[in-house]
Amino acid sequence: MSASYQTLSNPRVAIVGATGAVGIELIHCLEQRNFPLASLRLFASKRSVGRTLPFRGEDTAVEELNEENFHNIDLTLFSAGSGPSKHFGPLAVRRGAVVVDNSSAFRMDADIPLVVPEINPDALEGHRGIIANPNCAAIISLTPLWPLHRSNPIRRLIVATYQAASGAGAAAMEELRHSTRAYLEGREYEHTVLPHPYAFNLFSHNTTIDPATGYNGEESKVIAEARKIFGAPDLAVSATCVRVPVLRAHSVAITVEFENPMTPDRARALIADAPGVRLVDDAPNNHFPMPIEASGQDDILVGRIRQDLSDPSGRSIALFVAGDQLLKGAALNAVQIAELLLKKRES
Amino acid sequence: MSASYQTLSNPRVAIVGATGAVGIELIHCLEQRNFPLASLRLFASKRSVGRTLPFRGEDTAVEELNEENFHNIDLTLFSAGSGPSKHFGPLAVRRGAVVVDNSSAFRMDADIPLVVPEINPDALEGHRGIIANPNCAAIISLTPLWPLHRSNPIRRLIVATYQAASGAGAAAMEELRHSTRAYLEGREYEHTVLPHPYAFNLFSHNTTIDPATGYNGEESKVIAEARKIFGAPDLAVSATCVRVPVLRAHSVAITVEFENPMTPDRARALIADAPGVRLVDDAPNNHFPMPIEASGQDDILVGRIRQDLSDPSGRSIALFVAGDQLLKGAALNAVQIAELLLKKRES
Repeated sequence: MSASYQTLSNPRVAIVGATGAVGIELIHCLEQRNFPLASLRLFASKRSVGRTLPFRGEDTAVEELNEENFHNIDLTLFSAGSGPSKHFGPLAVRRGAVVVDNSSAFRMDADIPLVVPEINPDALEGHRGIIANPNCAAIISLTPLWPLHRSNPIRRLIVATYQAASGAGAAAMEELRHSTRAYLEGREYEHTVLPHPYAFNLFSHNTTIDPATGYNGEESKVIAEARKIFGAPDLAVSATCVRVPVLRAHSVAITVEFENPMTPDRARALIADAPGVRLVDDAPNNHFPMPIEASGQDDILVGRIRQDLSDPSGRSIALFVAGDQLLKGAALNAVQIAELLLKKRES
Repeated sequence: MSASYQTLSNPRVAIVGATGAVGIELIHCLEQRNFPLASLRLFASKRSVGRTLPFRGEDTAVEELNEENFHNIDLTLFSAGSGPSKHFGPLAVRRGAVVVDNSSAFRMDADIPLVVPEINPDALEGHRGIIANPNCAAIISLTPLWPLHRSNPIRRLIVATYQAASGAGAAAMEELRHSTRAYLEGREYEHTVLPHPYAFNLFSHNTTIDPATGYNGEESKVIAEARKIFGAPDLAVSATCVRVPVLRAHSVAITVEFENPMTPDRARALIADAPGVRLVDDAPNNHFPMPIEASGQDDILVGRIRQDLSDPSGRSIALFVAGDQLLKGAALNAVQIAELLLKKRES
């Protein structure tokens, strides 16, 4: 392993999309993890200018994201959707910054690393300024599977997700709260953020269906990103992505087939020793991963580990995971990538 | 096919568990389907005595379920849990009634039919007085799969459920409403019906985990009942059953492997022609089965039909279904069974 990328030291940091659900968590993560930065600037769209957000006890002004404002930055964390990333990401790099991008804009570019620090930190080697932060459902599904895959290669992966409102942003979280309150009070509610009523309802993920495959955008991301992050281009993956009326943690029911036999005990031991995940697998007390317990936690909770009874070969297991969509699914993973960029790598 | 069971004509009907969530729907189904009955009696536990429930425009008194009261009945629909079914079911049969039982008490008894009318009506032949109504998640998963299975035998089935509160009864539906209202108002709420907080949360199904398999009671029912209903004792089935904050319709993400190749178009055509199911598979408008649209509907909604990309052999498809847990998942299916018992079978 060679130190082929420049390490950052005491960088001037900017967050693009600072007022969004992920942006707020990026600020929290930098603060809570005591990220060594020289300065922090917060960018958002024009309508947020005038707001301030607290960072390390000081009110920090939100600036408008535009080309004039955007300079003297060493590290930019983008979480404002693909449009701003495509426009300002390359600009930031040209002006000398490293970019960690939470949008899907660059994830599948062959020369842009797509990184989960617990899985493929080495992918950062030789980056050209932009590093992509993976899709939230992909991070939350794949982080617990990595220690298993390293021990016994995964051949086939079938996931069904239970995704929270936060994946569609702060406005979707508000829509879930408001529409539910209206339902309970017997009032009509006109949904404006998500395409379907959300109160006590669930629906197939609101991304466009690819007519060629029938898979929606979220499912296609999980499939493609799993292969790229695991470095396994032939990995067989299927996904069903569903939005459920939960606020900010995604859950996933996973069925996984390995090259060789795998037992639940072996899987449990591998996960117990792995970073970024925590076993919550208490069968006698029926206590397993739940969104409310995953919310606000850095670790992804993992449980319901059992043999997949539909595969008599003993090579498949089933499990159920829950992880905070805004933390490990987005902001925390981005800040962990930034932390890797700070480290002097062994050459 | 021989008329080996006695047909009912203008029966005197009783509902046991009449005040429960399913009991109320049983009354509605009998009324709406104009079930030809001579009389209807409603039984419940002692604490419901004094209540009346409307049936065909008349207030019908709720009677206490006890051995003294229980006579002169030709058909009894039980939905009061396994305890009352085990005690009063055989008693009802001894006193000349036919029993359709919505509990799990008798489902796996080899000589008791377990019936979904769209799937295995012939299983009623030779019944000995008790007919079992299947588990709600099993009915909702299996009814859409039957037309596929008849055309191309299913080899492997993997389901992940999104189950509503109603499966745990009216009190669980109330707990979902009350706990959610408390959450939105910032009040504490002490849950008493379900083992975990329910507001904007989900959790693994609250049935006991079998230490031998790691599967919970609900999952084990889905697996065993699928084999019995399909008459396919070797069917490979895996299930993950999850309770989501939805009021009364279950959804299921299904991955199914067939003996021979299967295309989404073929699956869609088979389902379009089948009874008890309705295609809701509008990709351009991102409109697929949802609990709020399945609620109050007799049909199970079926959509997201697509090739399972994790099986390159082309023998697997994925789909997503939603069905009213109280109707097709319970009361409607029981009344449909009763309707079959009324019919003079061809001999």
